[in-house]
Amino acid sequence: MKAFNDLADFSNEEILALIDLAARLDTAPEPEALKGKVLSLLFLSPSLRTLASFQAAMTRLGGGSFVISPEMSIHGIESRPGIVMDGAAAEHIREAIPVIASYGDAIGIRAFAQRKDLDADLGDQEYTALTDLIEKPYINMESAANHPCQSLADWKTMNELDIPADGGKLVLSWAYHPRALPLAVPAATLHMAAKRGMDVTVLRPEGFELPQRMMQNASAAAEASGGSVSESEDRKEAMEGAHVIYAKSWSSTRHYGDKLADQKLREQHLDWCVDETWFGNAQDDCRFMHCLPVRRGVVVTDDILDGPRSVVIQEARNRMLAQMAVLHQMLGNSS
Amino acid sequence: MKAFNDLADFSNEEILALIDLAARLDTAPEPEALKGKVLSLLFLSPSLRTLASFQAAMTRLGGGSFVISPEMSIHGIESRPGIVMDGAAAEHIREAIPVIASYGDAIGIRAFAQRKDLDADLGDQEYTALTDLIEKPYINMESAANHPCQSLADWKTMNELDIPADGGKLVLSWAYHPRALPLAVPAATLHMAAKRGMDVTVLRPEGFELPQRMMQNASAAAEASGGSVSESEDRKEAMEGAHVIYAKSWSSTRHYGDKLADQKLREQHLDWCVDETWFGNAQDDCRFMHCLPVRRGVVVTDDILDGPRSVVIQEARNRMLAQMAVLHQMLGNSS
Amino acid sequence: MKAFNDLADFSNEEILALIDLAARLDTAPEPEALKGKVLSLLFLSPSLRTLASFQAAMTRLGGGSFVISPEMSIHGIESRPGIVMDGAAAEHIREAIPVIASYGDAIGIRAFAQRKDLDADLGDQEYTALTDLIEKPYINMESAANHPCQSLADWKTMNELDIPADGGKLVLSWAYHPRALPLAVPAATLHMAAKRGMDVTVLRPEGFELPQRMMQNASAAAEASGGSVSESEDRKEAMEGAHVIYAKSWSSTRHYGDKLADQKLREQHLDWCVDETWFGNAQDDCRFMHCLPVRRGVVVTDDILDGPRSVVIQEARNRMLAQMAVLHQMLGNSS
Repeated sequence: MKAFNDLADFSNEEILALIDLAARLDTAPEPEALKGKVLSLLFLSPSLRTLASFQAAMTRLGGGSFVISPEMSIHGIESRPGIVMDGAAAEHIREAIPVIASYGDAIGIRAFAQRKDLDADLGDQEYTALTDLIEKPYINMESAANHPCQSLADWKTMNELDIPADGGKLVLSWAYHPRALPLAVPAATLHMAAKRGMDVTVLRPEGFELPQRMMQNASAAAEASGGSVSESEDRKEAMEGAHVIYAKSWSSTRHYGDKLADQKLREQHLDWCVDETWFGNAQDDCRFMHCLPVRRGVVVTDDILDGPRSVVIQEARNRMLAQMAVLHQMLGNSS
Repeated sequence: MKAFNDLADFSNEEILALIDLAARLDTAPEPEALKGKVLSLLFLSPSLRTLASFQAAMTRLGGGSFVISPEMSIHGIESRPGIVMDGAAAEHIREAIPVIASYGDAIGIRAFAQRKDLDADLGDQEYTALTDLIEKPYINMESAANHPCQSLADWKTMNELDIPADGGKLVLSWAYHPRALPLAVPAATLHMAAKRGMDVTVLRPEGFELPQRMMQNASAAAEASGGSVSESEDRKEAMEGAHVIYAKSWSSTRHYGDKLADQKLREQHLDWCVDETWFGNAQDDCRFMHCLPVRRGVVVTDDILDGPRSVVIQEARNRMLAQMAVLHQMLGNSS
Repeated sequence: MKAFNDLADFSNEEILALIDLAARLDTAPEPEALKGKVLSLLFLSPSLRTLASFQAAMTRLGGGSFVISPEMSIHGIESRPGIVMDGAAAEHIREAIPVIASYGDAIGIRAFAQRKDLDADLGDQEYTALTDLIEKPYINMESAANHPCQSLADWKTMNELDIPADGGKLVLSWAYHPRALPLAVPAATLHMAAKRGMDVTVLRPEGFELPQRMMQNASAAAEASGGSVSESEDRKEAMEGAHVIYAKSWSSTRHYGDKLADQKLREQHLDWCVDETWFGNAQDDCRFMHCLPVRRGVVVTDDILDGPRSVVIQEARNRMLAQMAVLHQMLGNSS
């Protein structure tokens, strides 16, 4: 495996093999599998789960890692091409990336959206500009438009919970949040659930439609797997028979990059906070999923998060296991 | 061992077994004992010794660790229960703790005192609220009212120095410091020395008495071990025949949580800086102990710290060894 | 090996043995060589390459490391001797250094120049005050006047590129930079190239002469190895027949410690930015070397950095390999 960049690059069989491997490494540890191997971890955006779970994953497989973030450099890291560097930044990403990559056997990169130009973000332009500088295997630790580690973990979580792929229904619901958030998790989740063969409904208020390109990609994946993709702003209609609600806030795509307009529109939907009333016509054991961090009382109520519907901790733990499987395939001796 | 939370949870025999194990691991390294095992380290308060010594301990035993502190999260970690999270913090401790714990085989937690309500702090309410969220083994890396790793290291240090348990005298002395400091180390040290069977005198100016609850706990431990606990504000009386002076500043318990009143009282005692004159009627080879960090020229003079009485570096190194023993018992195959 | 402090402490044969070992560890990994061994890493100045490459080096050899920097301590670390610590800093370097060293099998230290007194910096007074407190093996990770890890990596890089030692010409060129930078890399590079037996020319504008003491040390090394040391402010004369240009900015030694005077002088030389015109009379395949981080468009143009002359990424990767060799000799079982 040269890159773990997008679940779309893998067949469903390959994904299921990764999930099997993740489960095997959980019950039958292999603390020598990556002996002496190094994973470089570059965080151009903040992190908690990803930071912790990748370090833990490498240790469990007998290797190690190191973490670099821009604030560790003297004055930050410059990324604009062709610039005369007479300002604050003392290092350019064109040196930083190959150097950091050169110390590892693989590199994980997190680079968030610019949130200025929607097409640039959907095309993952910034992240791709970085990975173009790397010759080593690399892992997408969340980019503007993708989060494949999260999606692999979520797929594993749904398998463990016996949520059906064929005939299973996942509602990807927008939720209120005080800040405009990236599209990476909704994009990745939508595509993953469609690729898994589920019937996916995107539930969101007007102005928060997911970009057409995202919807089309997901529809194509659904078609290949026997699933379906639809959208709705009607909560009751969307939740009918749902096995899972996956809540996540995201920016208004209508006002992309316009903070004030986004905020104005968003604040009309303070009631998009998932509580028990949402589940009236869902499956009895309908689950609540979220990638974390989650704002209690804003995105979802305490009683849902602390109750039996919530599987957010299981999802988070599966991050580590899913990443162990990826690293094992990428760097193990059999690879 | 499910938790290393308080030395009071262990019999003196169990403590001596840990100290023996610590010494054995120093001379006969076991670099495969915790192969592939992970320790999660959560610092809700700053650290240097604890941060370094736990990481080193895991590496020496063949495992690894990762470090999480609130500033790594996007906007800090919320800890208030039932709150609507529409402010700065993007993550709640109720998710953060179980997630971080899920990546490790054990978790170490440091959470300082709130220093508002003395009873809450003495009951370690904040720390206990965190450990209640954990199903994995956990280690107290310093809480409002305890610091068992420090105390285990100090016990080992005194054993190495042949400071008698039965008949040995330890003076726990308040010292001046420009800031109001927590009660964790005095509480832990007082109890540890009493439990070890020593005659302990708490030497402090008026207004800096240790809380009754602490004194009573220590007295009970002393009684069981053949030691004694007393208090004094008379330096000469306290130091008579002392084998050890353990210096440490702490908040005024009379003005707990009242910074200004504490400061006003404290500043009357700038002369509580340990120097050679304190040792006139102590044992000739009376030792100076301190948990570090220590303010030179404020808590103790340079000549004491740099002279033969000081064993502070030995104490600090024993932190690592003591923690290796705890981790070995907690996570080793024989556990 | 008790210390890796200065390349001058080693014979050319010993250096070549380290370079051979570094190359061997690259092709024939030894992931158990330093099993359970710990390297303490103390950064009193910021770092990216050194931070990453030392951590990676220890992992590749089967050991581990931990990182301490002053901002991790509650209020920074005091270094002035004999001071009454009633200000912000809660810990003194006289405790911090021995404690941090006690957790490792060796310690790496980075401490930059004070840039007040040139003689103090040239004598590496601050760094030496730190290493005087250490009984363990230690490694200079860049001090006021030295950077032996960089120089070992650069020597290895030149060997790989078949740049001749006997008869090879290296131009150490000053370059413009918006800030006054330390003398460590120019000092180390000058001495290394001279010791390697090369003909070294220091190219710099008036006011940026390297200190006499540095030039004399290098001349002595050159004499012993059959090389030579000269200086020039004439670019064409200096570059004649050069095999390597090593660019680096440094403070004006004429105005050492005087920021404004330094800046005023420096700003007269904005044209000291290496571009293709510099190479007219050099060897056809004359290489561009730099220790990184480098400011694009300021120290060197994009086309040089991105073109075939540049070997800066190879130099950076050799940092890790060179350090692995040092650590292997210092901490390996055969040591």
